[in-house]
Amino acid sequence: MDFAQSARSREYLDRLRAFIATEVAPVEARLHAERVKPFAQRSDVPGAAMWQVPEEFRQLQSKARAEGLWNLFLPDAELGAGLSNVEYAPLAEEMGRSPLAPVVFNCNAPDTGNMEVLYHYGSTEQKERWLRPLLDGEIRSAFCMTEPDVASSDATNMAATAVVEGNEVVLNGRKWWSTGVGSPDCKVLIFMGLTDPEAHKYQRHSMVLVPMDTPGVKVERMLSTMGFYDEPFGHGEVSFTNVRLPLDAIIAGPGRGFEIAQGRLGPGRVHHCMRLVGLAESALELAIRRGTERVAFGKPLINLGGNRERIADARIAINQLRLLVLNTAWLLDTQGIAGARSAVSEIKVAAPRVAQQVIDFAMQIHGGGGLSDDFPLAGAWTSARAIRLADGPDEVHQGLVARFELGKYQ
Amino acid sequence: MDFAQSARSREYLDRLRAFIATEVAPVEARLHAERVKPFAQRSDVPGAAMWQVPEEFRQLQSKARAEGLWNLFLPDAELGAGLSNVEYAPLAEEMGRSPLAPVVFNCNAPDTGNMEVLYHYGSTEQKERWLRPLLDGEIRSAFCMTEPDVASSDATNMAATAVVEGNEVVLNGRKWWSTGVGSPDCKVLIFMGLTDPEAHKYQRHSMVLVPMDTPGVKVERMLSTMGFYDEPFGHGEVSFTNVRLPLDAIIAGPGRGFEIAQGRLGPGRVHHCMRLVGLAESALELAIRRGTERVAFGKPLINLGGNRERIADARIAINQLRLLVLNTAWLLDTQGIAGARSAVSEIKVAAPRVAQQVIDFAMQIHGGGGLSDDFPLAGAWTSARAIRLADGPDEVHQGLVARFELGKYQ
Amino acid sequence: MDFAQSARSREYLDRLRAFIATEVAPVEARLHAERVKPFAQRSDVPGAAMWQVPEEFRQLQSKARAEGLWNLFLPDAELGAGLSNVEYAPLAEEMGRSPLAPVVFNCNAPDTGNMEVLYHYGSTEQKERWLRPLLDGEIRSAFCMTEPDVASSDATNMAATAVVEGNEVVLNGRKWWSTGVGSPDCKVLIFMGLTDPEAHKYQRHSMVLVPMDTPGVKVERMLSTMGFYDEPFGHGEVSFTNVRLPLDAIIAGPGRGFEIAQGRLGPGRVHHCMRLVGLAESALELAIRRGTERVAFGKPLINLGGNRERIADARIAINQLRLLVLNTAWLLDTQGIAGARSAVSEIKVAAPRVAQQVIDFAMQIHGGGGLSDDFPLAGAWTSARAIRLADGPDEVHQGLVARFELGKYQ
Amino acid sequence: MDFAQSARSREYLDRLRAFIATEVAPVEARLHAERVKPFAQRSDVPGAAMWQVPEEFRQLQSKARAEGLWNLFLPDAELGAGLSNVEYAPLAEEMGRSPLAPVVFNCNAPDTGNMEVLYHYGSTEQKERWLRPLLDGEIRSAFCMTEPDVASSDATNMAATAVVEGNEVVLNGRKWWSTGVGSPDCKVLIFMGLTDPEAHKYQRHSMVLVPMDTPGVKVERMLSTMGFYDEPFGHGEVSFTNVRLPLDAIIAGPGRGFEIAQGRLGPGRVHHCMRLVGLAESALELAIRRGTERVAFGKPLINLGGNRERIADARIAINQLRLLVLNTAWLLDTQGIAGARSAVSEIKVAAPRVAQQVIDFAMQIHGGGGLSDDFPLAGAWTSARAIRLADGPDEVHQGLVARFELGKYQ
Repeated sequence: MDFAQSARSREYLDRLRAFIATEVAPVEARLHAERVKPFAQRSDVPGAAMWQVPEEFRQLQSKARAEGLWNLFLPDAELGAGLSNVEYAPLAEEMGRSPLAPVVFNCNAPDTGNMEVLYHYGSTEQKERWLRPLLDGEIRSAFCMTEPDVASSDATNMAATAVVEGNEVVLNGRKWWSTGVGSPDCKVLIFMGLTDPEAHKYQRHSMVLVPMDTPGVKVERMLSTMGFYDEPFGHGEVSFTNVRLPLDAIIAGPGRGFEIAQGRLGPGRVHHCMRLVGLAESALELAIRRGTERVAFGKPLINLGGNRERIADARIAINQLRLLVLNTAWLLDTQGIAGARSAVSEIKVAAPRVAQQVIDFAMQIHGGGGLSDDFPLAGAWTSARAIRLADGPDEVHQGLVARFELGKYQ
Repeated sequence: MDFAQSARSREYLDRLRAFIATEVAPVEARLHAERVKPFAQRSDVPGAAMWQVPEEFRQLQSKARAEGLWNLFLPDAELGAGLSNVEYAPLAEEMGRSPLAPVVFNCNAPDTGNMEVLYHYGSTEQKERWLRPLLDGEIRSAFCMTEPDVASSDATNMAATAVVEGNEVVLNGRKWWSTGVGSPDCKVLIFMGLTDPEAHKYQRHSMVLVPMDTPGVKVERMLSTMGFYDEPFGHGEVSFTNVRLPLDAIIAGPGRGFEIAQGRLGPGRVHHCMRLVGLAESALELAIRRGTERVAFGKPLINLGGNRERIADARIAINQLRLLVLNTAWLLDTQGIAGARSAVSEIKVAAPRVAQQVIDFAMQIHGGGGLSDDFPLAGAWTSARAIRLADGPDEVHQGLVARFELGKYQ
Repeated sequence: MDFAQSARSREYLDRLRAFIATEVAPVEARLHAERVKPFAQRSDVPGAAMWQVPEEFRQLQSKARAEGLWNLFLPDAELGAGLSNVEYAPLAEEMGRSPLAPVVFNCNAPDTGNMEVLYHYGSTEQKERWLRPLLDGEIRSAFCMTEPDVASSDATNMAATAVVEGNEVVLNGRKWWSTGVGSPDCKVLIFMGLTDPEAHKYQRHSMVLVPMDTPGVKVERMLSTMGFYDEPFGHGEVSFTNVRLPLDAIIAGPGRGFEIAQGRLGPGRVHHCMRLVGLAESALELAIRRGTERVAFGKPLINLGGNRERIADARIAINQLRLLVLNTAWLLDTQGIAGARSAVSEIKVAAPRVAQQVIDFAMQIHGGGGLSDDFPLAGAWTSARAIRLADGPDEVHQGLVARFELGKYQ
Repeated sequence: MDFAQSARSREYLDRLRAFIATEVAPVEARLHAERVKPFAQRSDVPGAAMWQVPEEFRQLQSKARAEGLWNLFLPDAELGAGLSNVEYAPLAEEMGRSPLAPVVFNCNAPDTGNMEVLYHYGSTEQKERWLRPLLDGEIRSAFCMTEPDVASSDATNMAATAVVEGNEVVLNGRKWWSTGVGSPDCKVLIFMGLTDPEAHKYQRHSMVLVPMDTPGVKVERMLSTMGFYDEPFGHGEVSFTNVRLPLDAIIAGPGRGFEIAQGRLGPGRVHHCMRLVGLAESALELAIRRGTERVAFGKPLINLGGNRERIADARIAINQLRLLVLNTAWLLDTQGIAGARSAVSEIKVAAPRVAQQVIDFAMQIHGGGGLSDDFPLAGAWTSARAIRLADGPDEVHQGLVARFELGKYQ
């Protein structure tokens, strides 16, 4: 239970901060300025263009990679930075303060989770074909699990199929909230579907690697989240119609979908939570800066009514959350996913709650501006809200935590 | 304290419901389908086109007017429907369930508030020039009060000026969250500015009627609220640079801005709250419908975990809110704005809270869909959130309620 | 939906207030002073003596009765005051501000509920023997329903028996939270027990009138609620061992227990909620008085931090609650218990929540004193907390409200 | 930031648990049984007798001391156990699960804080006279700071005086919430009073050691907290009338009261919070045990409605709290009180909130029993509630946390 930051982690953090301040922040500011630019021009902006990846993104990625600020999430020392989860936590938190940073350092969802799947379960060929270019940032990927037509909180509801026919696996079904499919760089999807309805409940499904250009794969539309499209990556609804792939497209063989999903979602959820700590911190900082600059009724806003109490409550909530996240990282490092299952669900519930609370306060103290795109708060709130559903809704994680808790008494 | 619905109000409600079901709902469904239509087309949608008012809007308005479902908000029996606030409440609640309905029946913000200003304070000429076409739905209007550069929660911070020079009044300054300026039909702005800094705190400001095409008026940009532009009406930032108007553009003469604002904001806020009751009701209905249709872990969602408790809490909260709104309407009817000041602030705080809580639950029970534009929930949540800031942030209204409460002990 | 106070109700309210101020308050103050009197003497106080009814209680009751401030709760114009529930609500609220007042005016739980049972379901003999002296305040009664050995939230769990044997009914079992059995004036218990396990679920139980001195009836002990014994009335655990009574001790005949309970608990719960509105109001008043008198950090407490926001939130919550209670009273008056079932459960959930919130704030602003017996806040909080369990826990009432809500969609 | 439990701490914990299970628990059970014993006897119980320390207490203390489970809180290796705060945390948590344990192991408030004051600031004579017997458990002490007549949340309000007159210091004033003065073993009070009103704000006050039997010292009365007297130790109101003591009764010399208070309250507050973690854990355990044993509507209570969600939320809240407390202990160990000031205030706010929430849930799931003395929940809730005021109300600690937070931006 040692959460102390190692020298290595500290050193990475310093460089990360410097890079974000000097390289990432100016690009973010420019892109943001474009977003809020005058009306006449705006009318021309969205549409197809907004789904292009700006060249600046790629340049930032190249620089980051050149400086070794790359794939920090991956514990493998050769392919990634070789950091433990406890070491990575402060770095992910720092990236979470910026909408752009996770992508710049190749540490963003869903690619990190997908890379981990390939790293742990992929065959040599699968690794060569997909993991390498993902690690290099040359391509992007998506994860196709949730379905529009069933309550996907219960994964056994999954209706899409991945049927083995001879040498092939045939995919059919419809998925949504496939994050990243909006990008022209998205070249591969990890699809989860039902293979054998007669097998044990947790051995019925398979995960299949689907090249984006396979016949029968169609991005039906991009979805907005509370009005945001999160372009140029976005979240899509994707249909699969008689998509045929060779059997070796299945990861780790048929029937292992649940096992892989379990492993995949653990670190992915923890990374989300690490970033949410940073998001909450940055919202608190914005609230304090705005609250001390602006004056009403003869006082800085921060000194009005219950604002200082809310500052204190935010600090308390964030500090508690960060410790719970660190503890989960430490459990992952020392006991693996099996020893961290309740902990992962605990932070999955706690993190977006805390972030939402702090961001809502920050929005309120910014007045109307807090709701607009002039500040990153509306987007931040939406990210936090979405994570209360993404990778399992709160209620499912509460159910898992309760199950573990009750299990202690049996 | 009689909140019983009159026969007249009941009769209007029946017709309103029928009209919404048969006329408005299909158009809403079609427009909504367009919003979520497939990706390829979507890329062409936004931009300039989204700020056009669809011809269907105008047709719906004509029909509504022909059926006498028009200007229901206006207590005046000749110009409006002649309903009391208690009588209007159920009608506004019904309209609040639909994003489109308030506009269809010419009962939407900010036009209703602006019409009331003109009705109560306008000169004969002002009424003829602006009130008549507004009542006829021929033009639309905006209200320019909040400013980007100061904490507008304290209205005395207002920095824009409306200086009297000879026969003219000269406007300078920058306003934002001017709702409605995005529409090509928006022809007039009500601008509030500082006229005499030496006068009594509440007699320094004037309200001025500004034709949209006056030189020096510029819509700088449209603002998004949590990602939504609320097109085709939208919320704009508007600059005023040496805008010169004849003195008779001032409503009720110089220095009466605060007095008018006070009167304007009362009913406007109450209408917002009436509609929020309807918004909360419709979210609860969506939650129940979805929760009974979808199944997870072998049960309808509604029977899982604390969902039924949340249904009950929503019902309790909505019922309490509706009664508080009705009581405020009754106070307005019987004691005027002066006797309803605390009550108006009470519902202004309570209504968006309740709506947010119920809508958030409904979003959660819809899973990812609840965040998307497939359901009206994301937009509904955003409306409720915005009202926690619009027309005065919660904290200012809490302050007023507390002041009244403490005043009882002096 | 007319909640206006009638002239008659207003007139009663004026007299009630005057009587409480001049007659009840001084006695309360004296009894309270005794409670907090110096240590040396205190050591002698509790014990048997505390279960005596002070003579002053009886004198206050006589005076109240002489002035016609008596049995105000009973809608019957001959036996009671003949007030509707809407008319009674402000009177019950006023009584709720004082721990002593409900008893003084013969309007306290559980006697009011028991009197209503006898009024509606009692035979002529039962009325003569028990209802008359209860209405006269000569005796007191208790209600024995909840049992220590089962989860009584599910009434079908009830294990006590009321078996018909020839001309007799034989009672066995153990009940607790029998309020009022501590008083020497308590002469009769209403006991509910299982008569016919084979009958329809809601026709298995009977209610039996049990004279306190019947052989086999034993008060095992008095229970404390959060440390308070609520002497001299108190809450007891009572055992029934082969208690034999003639058949005519059964109210309305065997098997009608559930039906009677349903009818009994409706008005009883509403009265609780009416009083809780008054309790919350008096806590808010205490908070404001203390908060304006005491100074810290150079300001009256009320102006520190979020205190004014809490005042506002309390006012909003209380106003909403009062309206919901009035609406429930109005439903009872106009549609009877059947039309008010959801409403009764709604206020049963809402009222103690609001009261707890306001009282907790008042305690906090009183500092340590707020927890002590120097102020009525600790006792008030405990009353509110207890009502979240008494007459059905929150969760059961939420379940009922949800059931009604979902029923609208079938 | 290493919170891992040391081998030594683990070993103490094992022995502590065993001792509590075999020695303390049976005594607690017996005393508890006495508390709820039948009515007839109960009437004789309270009064003077309840303020006697049962002989069993002393025997338990002797045994605990003999086994080396004694003064575990004191970091000094000779006088205490020599444990760091991080090492002590799990032990204090364990003691917090039992009302009796802290006293048994001589680790209870306010004696631990008082011993620390003497340890750090006492003269050799003061240590010999008071610290030694306190460490030996021969006597007990109280801390007299809060005053009934002023808002003591602002310590500069303090009105009691400690005036130096020649060789003597003369005390006058009235204190309350002096915990422990009810016990016949309480032999010394630490009194804080105003010495020099002209000095710097934080150098005006002195702390004075007052033998309980000094003329002029009078326990005016014992105070109840939410109905509980917490006998035999209790909380008293104490008057000081011309109490004369030699100058060497002043701890560390005149004017150092604030400095000492600051130092004293740090560890004292942390110990409270450590114990609250244990209190919350034990409430959660009780809730789960009861919830799985009792059945309603055909299911164990724990599976009804939102109960499992509440279990999960409790687990999340407790885990976060424990980590925040450990982090504070670690800051105290590594950076001293100066480096832990915000952290101490953070847990002081967070700990009772979490405990209250969990205990309230546990009470609810116990039904009426949860409010009675049959379970330790009512007492536990009261302890938690009291700590929201003791050693500084929440609002003062929130203010301090906010001040530190805002300080980062200056």
